[in-house]
Amino acid sequence: MNAIVISIGDEILSGDILNTNSQFISKSLKEQNIEVSKIYTIRDNIEDIINSTKESLAHSDIIIVTGGLGPTEDDKTREGVAEALNYNLVLDDSLLKEIKDKFTKNNYIMSDNNIKQAYRIENSIVLKNTKGTAPGMLVNYHNKKIFLLPGPPRELQPMFNKYVLDSLRNKSDQKIFTRTIHTIGIGESHLEEKIKPFFNNNIQIGMYANNGIVDIKVSSKASCLSQAKNNVNAFLNSIDIDKYIWGFDEETLESIVLELLKKNNLTIGFAESLTGGLISSNFTRLSGVSEVFPLSLITYSNASKINLLGVKKETLKEYGAVSKETAIEMAEGLVKKYEVDIALSVTGIAGPTGATKNKPVGLVFIGIANKKISISKKIILNGDRNNIQNRTSLNAFSTLRNFLLKNY
Amino acid sequence: MNAIVISIGDEILSGDILNTNSQFISKSLKEQNIEVSKIYTIRDNIEDIINSTKESLAHSDIIIVTGGLGPTEDDKTREGVAEALNYNLVLDDSLLKEIKDKFTKNNYIMSDNNIKQAYRIENSIVLKNTKGTAPGMLVNYHNKKIFLLPGPPRELQPMFNKYVLDSLRNKSDQKIFTRTIHTIGIGESHLEEKIKPFFNNNIQIGMYANNGIVDIKVSSKASCLSQAKNNVNAFLNSIDIDKYIWGFDEETLESIVLELLKKNNLTIGFAESLTGGLISSNFTRLSGVSEVFPLSLITYSNASKINLLGVKKETLKEYGAVSKETAIEMAEGLVKKYEVDIALSVTGIAGPTGATKNKPVGLVFIGIANKKISISKKIILNGDRNNIQNRTSLNAFSTLRNFLLKNY
Repeated sequence: MNAIVISIGDEILSGDILNTNSQFISKSLKEQNIEVSKIYTIRDNIEDIINSTKESLAHSDIIIVTGGLGPTEDDKTREGVAEALNYNLVLDDSLLKEIKDKFTKNNYIMSDNNIKQAYRIENSIVLKNTKGTAPGMLVNYHNKKIFLLPGPPRELQPMFNKYVLDSLRNKSDQKIFTRTIHTIGIGESHLEEKIKPFFNNNIQIGMYANNGIVDIKVSSKASCLSQAKNNVNAFLNSIDIDKYIWGFDEETLESIVLELLKKNNLTIGFAESLTGGLISSNFTRLSGVSEVFPLSLITYSNASKINLLGVKKETLKEYGAVSKETAIEMAEGLVKKYEVDIALSVTGIAGPTGATKNKPVGLVFIGIANKKISISKKIILNGDRNNIQNRTSLNAFSTLRNFLLKNY
Repeated sequence: MNAIVISIGDEILSGDILNTNSQFISKSLKEQNIEVSKIYTIRDNIEDIINSTKESLAHSDIIIVTGGLGPTEDDKTREGVAEALNYNLVLDDSLLKEIKDKFTKNNYIMSDNNIKQAYRIENSIVLKNTKGTAPGMLVNYHNKKIFLLPGPPRELQPMFNKYVLDSLRNKSDQKIFTRTIHTIGIGESHLEEKIKPFFNNNIQIGMYANNGIVDIKVSSKASCLSQAKNNVNAFLNSIDIDKYIWGFDEETLESIVLELLKKNNLTIGFAESLTGGLISSNFTRLSGVSEVFPLSLITYSNASKINLLGVKKETLKEYGAVSKETAIEMAEGLVKKYEVDIALSVTGIAGPTGATKNKPVGLVFIGIANKKISISKKIILNGDRNNIQNRTSLNAFSTLRNFLLKNY
C-alpha cells in the first residue's frame, strides 16, 4: 500500500525552512507497512494545490496534505483541496466555538481572520489540534483518504500519531520487513561488491553513504511478515562484512556508546574545543545519559584549556592548541581533575579562519584517556565549518566505541 | 524564471535521511532571482524518474535532478533521464580515465561497478565531482537545461556552486527583492491584523510561525531590482511593529547576540544542564565566536553543579536542581569563578523522564548574571525531549539579547 505526501508552503520552496515533516511522515508510515511513493512540494498557490491533489488521487488511496491551514491570506490549502474534489467549504459551528474558547482560555483576543479556520471541507471529519489554532481534516472520498494537517511540526506530529496512524493501522495487504546495517571503514562500491553475490529476487537493497558511514538497507515484501523476515535474515546470514558493521536499524554511534558505558558501569566527560558543545549535545539528545554523563568542559580559549584542564603552557607553546599533545593533555586533565572514568577530547580547526601553513582547516585531533591509558587520533576532514564540526562528532563517537570495545 | 527540482532516492522516501539538498538549491537559486516552483521527491525507480522528468520539462526551462548517480545497482537516474529525453548513454573515455586515476591516487582499487559512472547521456557536458566518484552532467535539450548532480550534500554543494550557478547567473528577466522580518512576542494572526492594512499588489507576503518566532517574508517582483526594492521598503516603512522585531533576513538570535557582545567588548560563558551543550554548540556554529567565548561548563550532575559552579548543597536540597535559585547560582558561579563577563545558565526537565508533581516536563529556568546584576526567567515548553532542548536554546538567546539591550 502506498501513500503520497503533498507539502504546501512558499517558505519550503524558498529554502527558508527545511521540510522535516515529510521525513517524519515517511518514517511513521513505513512502520505501518505503508510506503510513501512520492512527495510533492508545492507553493501556496491554488492551481498547484488543485493539480497535485488530482494527480495524487490518480495514483494513491492515501494522501497526506501538510501546511497552508493557517489563518492568514497566504494559506490556501482548504480551498485548493475542496476544489480538486469538487466539494464546498462549510462553516462548522462547533469548530468556531472551539477556536473562540481556545482564545478565551489563553486570554488572547481572537482576530477576525481566525474565523477562516472554522471552515471545513464538506464530507470531512475535523481533526483536533491541541497545540495550535489550525484544525486538521480527514476527507473520505470514493474509498480514498485525504488528510489535511497543519505545517508546524509540533502541531502536525501529535495529530499524525493520533488520527492518521489510527485510521491506517493494519490497512496494508503486503507486509514489509526492513533492516538497516550501519558500516564504517569501507567505501560504498567496495561494500556492494562484497555483498552483491548474495543479491536475490526476494530482497531489495539500497545503499547510502554519508560522512564516511555507509548504510545498507535490506527490505523484503511478502504476504506475511514472517516470510519477509526470513528473506531478509537469509541475506544477512549469507554476507560476510562483520568487521565493518557498527550497528543496526535505529542504533546510532551515540546510542551504542551509551549502552557500552552503561554495561561497563563507566562515566564519561567531554573536553571540547572546535566542536564547542556539539559532541555533548549529540550525546544528551538521548534520554538516560544522566547515569553515565556528569559533566563536560567546553574549553574554547587557550586560557580555559590551562585553567580548567591543566594543559601545560609549554605544550600549547611548543605544539600549539591543535596538536596530538594538547588533545591528550585535555583528556588526561579531565580524568584527573573531575569525576569521570573516561574523557574524550577534541581540538582542531573548524574554519573558515584559523588555518596555518602546517595546519589546514579540517585538521582534528581526538584524545581519549582513562586512569591507565591515553590514545590519540589525527584526522583530516573536508567541508565547511559545520560539516567539520559534525564529522568530528561522528569520528569522536566511532573512536570512543572502538576504545570501549578495546580495539586500540 | 522558475526551476523544478527532482530529488531521487528511496532513502529520502523511507525517511532514513532528511532532504537538505532541496533547501540548499532553493536558497541558492533565489539569490539568482530564480524561483523553485516545485520539488518532486521520488523513488530510485526508472518509471518515476521518466515521468517526473517529462512533467518537469513541460513546466520549466531549468530542471535540477539530484541523487541516484552512484555506482550501485539501485542508482537509476542516468538511465531514467536519458530515456525521458530519448537520448542514449555513451561511454566517455576521458571520464573512465579520470575515475581510474582518482582510485589510483587514493590507493584504492576500482571495482567493476564504478565503470557505470563513466557513462554519460549523449549531448551532455560532464560536470566534475572533486569530492566523490559520481560525476554530474548538464544536458542541453531544446533551450532547456537539465542538471544531474550527486545526492551527498558535500559533493552536490560545490558542484552546484561551480556549474549550476555559473550557467544560470543573470538569466532571469524579472528581478525579485525579498526581506524577512523576524519577530517574537506576538502570535501569527495578530501580527497579520496589524500589517494587513498595508498589503498591496506590488508585494507578496508570507508568514511563518515556529517555536514562538513569527517571520514575515515580504517580496516584490519587478523588471528592475531598484523598483522591487522600493516596493518592499515602502511596505516596511508603512507598518508599525518595531517592538516585536528582533532581526532581519539572515540574522539569527545567535548572530545578534554575537554582534552585541563584540560591540560591547564582553565575553560570555554558558552553564548548561538540560541542553547538555546545545546552547554552546549553536553559538559556536558561528565563525568568529572565539573573540567573545572562552568557555562553557556542561554541569549535568548535581555534583558538578556544586564542584564546578559553587551551587550550594542547601539550594539543591531546598529548591531542587530545577529551580530559579539553582539557575541564578549557576550563572553567578560561572561569572565569579571563571574569566567571563556574562554567564547564562539553564536548568530544566527535558523529559521524557524526570518530572515530579510540581515540576512537569518542559519546566525550564534561565539565569543570567554579570558582576552586578542577576536575573532569572521561568518558562514552560511543549514538545518532546529534543523540541524542549531546541526551544530552551532559542529562549536563552532571546533572553540574552534583551539583557544585552538592557531590557530587563
